[in-house]
Amino acid sequence: MENSTSEPQPLLALVDALKRLPGVGVRTARRMAYHLLQHDLQAAQQLGQALTNAVERLQHCEQCNGFTEVPICATCLHPERDKTLLCIVETPADQNSIEATHGYTGLYYVLMGRLAPLEGTGPDELDFDRVLARAADGIVQEVILATNFTAEGETTAHYLSEALRTRGIKVTRLARGVPAGSEIEYVDAGTVAWALMERKPT
Amino acid sequence: MENSTSEPQPLLALVDALKRLPGVGVRTARRMAYHLLQHDLQAAQQLGQALTNAVERLQHCEQCNGFTEVPICATCLHPERDKTLLCIVETPADQNSIEATHGYTGLYYVLMGRLAPLEGTGPDELDFDRVLARAADGIVQEVILATNFTAEGETTAHYLSEALRTRGIKVTRLARGVPAGSEIEYVDAGTVAWALMERKPT
Repeated sequence: MENSTSEPQPLLALVDALKRLPGVGVRTARRMAYHLLQHDLQAAQQLGQALTNAVERLQHCEQCNGFTEVPICATCLHPERDKTLLCIVETPADQNSIEATHGYTGLYYVLMGRLAPLEGTGPDELDFDRVLARAADGIVQEVILATNFTAEGETTAHYLSEALRTRGIKVTRLARGVPAGSEIEYVDAGTVAWALMERKPT
Repeated sequence: MENSTSEPQPLLALVDALKRLPGVGVRTARRMAYHLLQHDLQAAQQLGQALTNAVERLQHCEQCNGFTEVPICATCLHPERDKTLLCIVETPADQNSIEATHGYTGLYYVLMGRLAPLEGTGPDELDFDRVLARAADGIVQEVILATNFTAEGETTAHYLSEALRTRGIKVTRLARGVPAGSEIEYVDAGTVAWALMERKPT
């Protein structure tokens, strides 16, 4: 009785498409498909339209490489932002985190990734020539490297730091240390070691 | 500088739509959106089309309530299936699990849910009248309750069992016991207790 209960093709196609989302395996994809079709048809339609819309309308900002609907995004065009500061982040999510501090008024460059040689992401994939050209526009005075403090983020920061320094651009990195509000007893040893090394006079 | 880095509307709409998937919060939705737009535009298009397609083309089988492209699904129409057996499952995924045993040749009824009074899912939401009518077609000799062995699945099975029995239909439930290939030492006490109570002569 082979194929007697094979599922209808549109359902299989939907499961296949959902499986391509990061972190979604076949079981989760099935659960999502059943949920959408059984309990939330409206969400299925909404998601379908949002995807088509986003693919058609979003592009990368010519200056900061972030997502935008226009050639140059609102952040890059904002008249009150400090054009002498350029903060390099891995993703738009990181940019949001820095914006949320309300303590940074400079501009951004979004790498849309980090160096990961084992996954085939090298300086060319991230278009480092474009990053360096952006930083060497003659207006930027300082580049703040705000890539993650993971092995890959550190590698990316190191690589960019070297390349920018040889071009005579001032480069800084986000400070490492004990997180705000944390108890030293519960902070991991690596962080405490950094905080000790980079201790500041009060 | 309010709104200076507000993200473009199509991106926000996509994140909102992804958030409606089960088990997806705002952070995961953002990660999915960035991934699709940055690394897998093709997947975004594919998913968009699959969703539209599925919403337009899938319907519920008139007999078993499963998803199908035609009024009555291939399983219900299959000439070699035993029409005297009706297996009631919660979801199409459960049906797939039973099909995968290659040991069941009867028909199915898919509830597309289970009784969950706290979530507002009662006998009316699951259309129990239709289930009972299906089971009382005069051809079905035995109804196998294959709802999950969770509190809600057990409640659903109990409710259906009572309703079917008063209509004079034979009702059985999947056996509970120690899973195949498992070591008793590592099986939870509840399962061992069931296995003891329902022990079989060899």
